[in-house]
Amino acid sequence: MKISTILLRKGANVISLRPEDTVQTASAILTINKIGALPVRNSAEELVGILSERDIVKGMHQMGAACINSLVQDLMSTKVTTCTEDEDVQSVQQKMHNGRFRHIPVIKEGKLIGVISQGDVMHMCIEQAQTEASVMRELAIARG
Amino acid sequence: MKISTILLRKGANVISLRPEDTVQTASAILTINKIGALPVRNSAEELVGILSERDIVKGMHQMGAACINSLVQDLMSTKVTTCTEDEDVQSVQQKMHNGRFRHIPVIKEGKLIGVISQGDVMHMCIEQAQTEASVMRELAIARG
Repeated sequence: MKISTILLRKGANVISLRPEDTVQTASAILTINKIGALPVRNSAEELVGILSERDIVKGMHQMGAACINSLVQDLMSTKVTTCTEDEDVQSVQQKMHNGRFRHIPVIKEGKLIGVISQGDVMHMCIEQAQTEASVMRELAIARG
Repeated sequence: MKISTILLRKGANVISLRPEDTVQTASAILTINKIGALPVRNSAEELVGILSERDIVKGMHQMGAACINSLVQDLMSTKVTTCTEDEDVQSVQQKMHNGRFRHIPVIKEGKLIGVISQGDVMHMCIEQAQTEASVMRELAIARG
């Protein structure tokens, strides 16, 4: 299975932050959309970082209440491992495993086209296993 | 594979919060231990909730800077899906899939003995696949 299959299921809408957004804004967008990490794009729409729930909690630990007014660029990770839509899900899962990442942005011709989470991969694998099992059951019934 | 196999790898030390701890304390413990959610135990050591990075970010969105002084019991989820150490990893993965959970506490005789994350399950499955592939390679070489 390719990453493009997961992206197709998630839809084309890529939510992202600007480096100059506040943590308050980031918290709102993460909560409302029920997502664990947001890619950060500059005004040229290039990926410049990723900000996760973990980065915010870490900021809260380090800065206390002041964290809420700090900027995304102060808390985000700038070294981002990415993938392409043509990559196998297995290869991306391996990248997540090696780097202990829970989110990997998908890049096409230098532009961000989506984000794949550990949950997306797991849910997709389980659904695929369920479909396969159901096909096998039907085959077994048809053959008596 | 059973949940007990994953628990054995993670070690017997179960970190948890008290309902009356502050979010400031919770942020510190989550950050220092690099974990995504903490079980909450009362003074009788019974599981009474779970607090995730997501709950903290949601609290930040809803309360603003005051969130840091709020109590774990105000933000935690009290309806917690659990599993036992005898359950198959596949069954727990299915529970995570159905409820969109990323963490499931493990209970034995009414007491909390561990927490399994989506990441633990994924990392374990990948390592198992790698071991199997390596055994197959050695077999193939041995047989010429």
